[in-house]
Amino acid sequence: MDAYSILQSVREKRPLIHHLTNWVTIYDCAAVTRAVGALPVMAHAPEEVAQMTGIASALVLNIGTLTREFIDAMIIAGRAANKKGIPIVLDAVGTGATDLRTQESKRLLRELRISIIKGNAGEISTLAGTEAEVKGVESIRSGDPVKVAQSLAKSSGSVIAITGREDIVSDGKKTYRILNGHEMMGKVVGTGCMAASVIGSFAAVERDYAKAAASALACFGIAGEIAAQTAKGPGTFKGAFFDALYNLKKEDIAKLRVDEL
Amino acid sequence: MDAYSILQSVREKRPLIHHLTNWVTIYDCAAVTRAVGALPVMAHAPEEVAQMTGIASALVLNIGTLTREFIDAMIIAGRAANKKGIPIVLDAVGTGATDLRTQESKRLLRELRISIIKGNAGEISTLAGTEAEVKGVESIRSGDPVKVAQSLAKSSGSVIAITGREDIVSDGKKTYRILNGHEMMGKVVGTGCMAASVIGSFAAVERDYAKAAASALACFGIAGEIAAQTAKGPGTFKGAFFDALYNLKKEDIAKLRVDEL
Amino acid sequence: MDAYSILQSVREKRPLIHHLTNWVTIYDCAAVTRAVGALPVMAHAPEEVAQMTGIASALVLNIGTLTREFIDAMIIAGRAANKKGIPIVLDAVGTGATDLRTQESKRLLRELRISIIKGNAGEISTLAGTEAEVKGVESIRSGDPVKVAQSLAKSSGSVIAITGREDIVSDGKKTYRILNGHEMMGKVVGTGCMAASVIGSFAAVERDYAKAAASALACFGIAGEIAAQTAKGPGTFKGAFFDALYNLKKEDIAKLRVDEL
Repeated sequence: MDAYSILQSVREKRPLIHHLTNWVTIYDCAAVTRAVGALPVMAHAPEEVAQMTGIASALVLNIGTLTREFIDAMIIAGRAANKKGIPIVLDAVGTGATDLRTQESKRLLRELRISIIKGNAGEISTLAGTEAEVKGVESIRSGDPVKVAQSLAKSSGSVIAITGREDIVSDGKKTYRILNGHEMMGKVVGTGCMAASVIGSFAAVERDYAKAAASALACFGIAGEIAAQTAKGPGTFKGAFFDALYNLKKEDIAKLRVDEL
Repeated sequence: MDAYSILQSVREKRPLIHHLTNWVTIYDCAAVTRAVGALPVMAHAPEEVAQMTGIASALVLNIGTLTREFIDAMIIAGRAANKKGIPIVLDAVGTGATDLRTQESKRLLRELRISIIKGNAGEISTLAGTEAEVKGVESIRSGDPVKVAQSLAKSSGSVIAITGREDIVSDGKKTYRILNGHEMMGKVVGTGCMAASVIGSFAAVERDYAKAAASALACFGIAGEIAAQTAKGPGTFKGAFFDALYNLKKEDIAKLRVDEL
Repeated sequence: MDAYSILQSVREKRPLIHHLTNWVTIYDCAAVTRAVGALPVMAHAPEEVAQMTGIASALVLNIGTLTREFIDAMIIAGRAANKKGIPIVLDAVGTGATDLRTQESKRLLRELRISIIKGNAGEISTLAGTEAEVKGVESIRSGDPVKVAQSLAKSSGSVIAITGREDIVSDGKKTYRILNGHEMMGKVVGTGCMAASVIGSFAAVERDYAKAAASALACFGIAGEIAAQTAKGPGTFKGAFFDALYNLKKEDIAKLRVDEL
């Protein structure tokens, strides 16, 4: 998998990545998009979202602090993305934890053609109809990630990306397992959301979305491994992580550990 | 005071701490909750707040960037917390600075049983009916913190936590003074809000809320002392502070300086 | 230009800077205000904005994640600022990228007396009626910054501050070019927004707004130069930058590179 050439393409093309995201990690979503070389923009007013999506190369939707009105704006933006043919990444944060999140995630899947659905095992299991437990935004119980990803990919037509200790990406035909990453990533608030922004940045320049998502998660994980070498805790990890992503070199990408299952 | 055993209990039980908080420090509230070992979740849609509180172990309400509608959502969440019997921490940010903040803080106190009210001396003095001046979110003038805390604790039935150079915690019967901390903490935006999240995390596992709040503030202050040893200013302090909280060891907690008055 | 004496005045007077800003960089706007010695407050409820502005020394308006309702609140706050005679800084984020942003920026200019309009070359060119292209929040194409700044300053009566590799400040009579800064600043999300907060802090204590804005941008740029000496990427740059601003000394300000054109 030539993740480096996709990363280089992001750095050269500097695609605009339009986000409608949550208020907790909105800065980190923007910062990580910039760190990989793309340009972030956040805009959610219903009057402008379609126009903003119209000049973007990918749309990232994250329901972390959703309201019904915010999802309405996502649908307007999403229709503009579908019309233009640019990829939509949905980060289904907290799906399964409350009825609102499950209902609104499903509404987005019904109303829009989502290119890539990203979530933890509990969130994706909920969408796949498998038994699962989500506590706030954490996955407590879920089905087998590989089977869940493959099953939801087939039924939805979307690429599925399940993040966790191991990341799984499937388009229903090919399935990747990404082993890069570091346990500190799970202890820092926002890594999940940031992963979706990096996936969006890669999908903006690579039309094979399963390959884009797997490459994005591998680069993301490698940056985490590099950051963990100097971090003394979750605070210093954060700064080191943005540095590592920004500075990723070809030789770093050689540490990529991706299996096709 | 065995603050360490409460901290360890947070780390082991990983309680879910539901926040309805402000848009300035929302990330820091989540990050500090995670750094002490609890799980943060932020959700404010009126349709889901009761359900989210229903799976949480504590509720933290912070009025830093309030609107009337946002307070309405807090009341729905707060009623669910009261029904379930989990603690509510109210961070009364800016109470006294504008009529809206004072009115809405008092509305929350009227409508909900608040376990712990946290604020700076000016904010708490305003709620206690003592003369005070609050400039934005800073305390300029206030009554004597010990007397104010004791008086409001008795009249409200809530534990009162006043943060400042010295922190005061009172439940109306026992009163603690916490001397831990470092002046740099007062120069970093968000330490006040983060303190409320740590108090909420501790109150989720310790039913003596005065003890929980005093222990939380002592651990918080010790982490600040540790972070100040390496920080070169408010920027690097921030990362070092999250690291210090995350890494707090039993021997660090021995630096605890809490008097019962 | 005695930028140091303005900075010292901010540190001594600790002016309250009321912000209605965007949800991406709201924390950074607060943090940078604090780092230069002023006190930030963020409040946007229509019921309280006039009262909060009434106790403030400057008002910073940033349309980065605008909605129509949010602009309505800005106008209420702005009228209170105009009535009180305190400066308003408008950061015209994304003006030119969508019709909503262009319309609402112009509405603010029509309804309020803005002291300082800040933006990148594309945003300011759009307001000046010069051909421009803005991609999200990035300037892609614009008129000559010096001419654009002078022209808009004359037609609007506001001081114009254009940020970029070189910053330009003009009040229509005198025009400054600020050469301080470092390329890493352009790679970190939020530096533009933070610049507006520092300009607001300086304008709160210096009535010559062109001088205030140029001094603010020079100090800001010098802090960036200092931070770049130790930063290993955009992540560690951020912390080092807040430290540098907080620690700015008289000898650092000697590195000031400002030309009057």
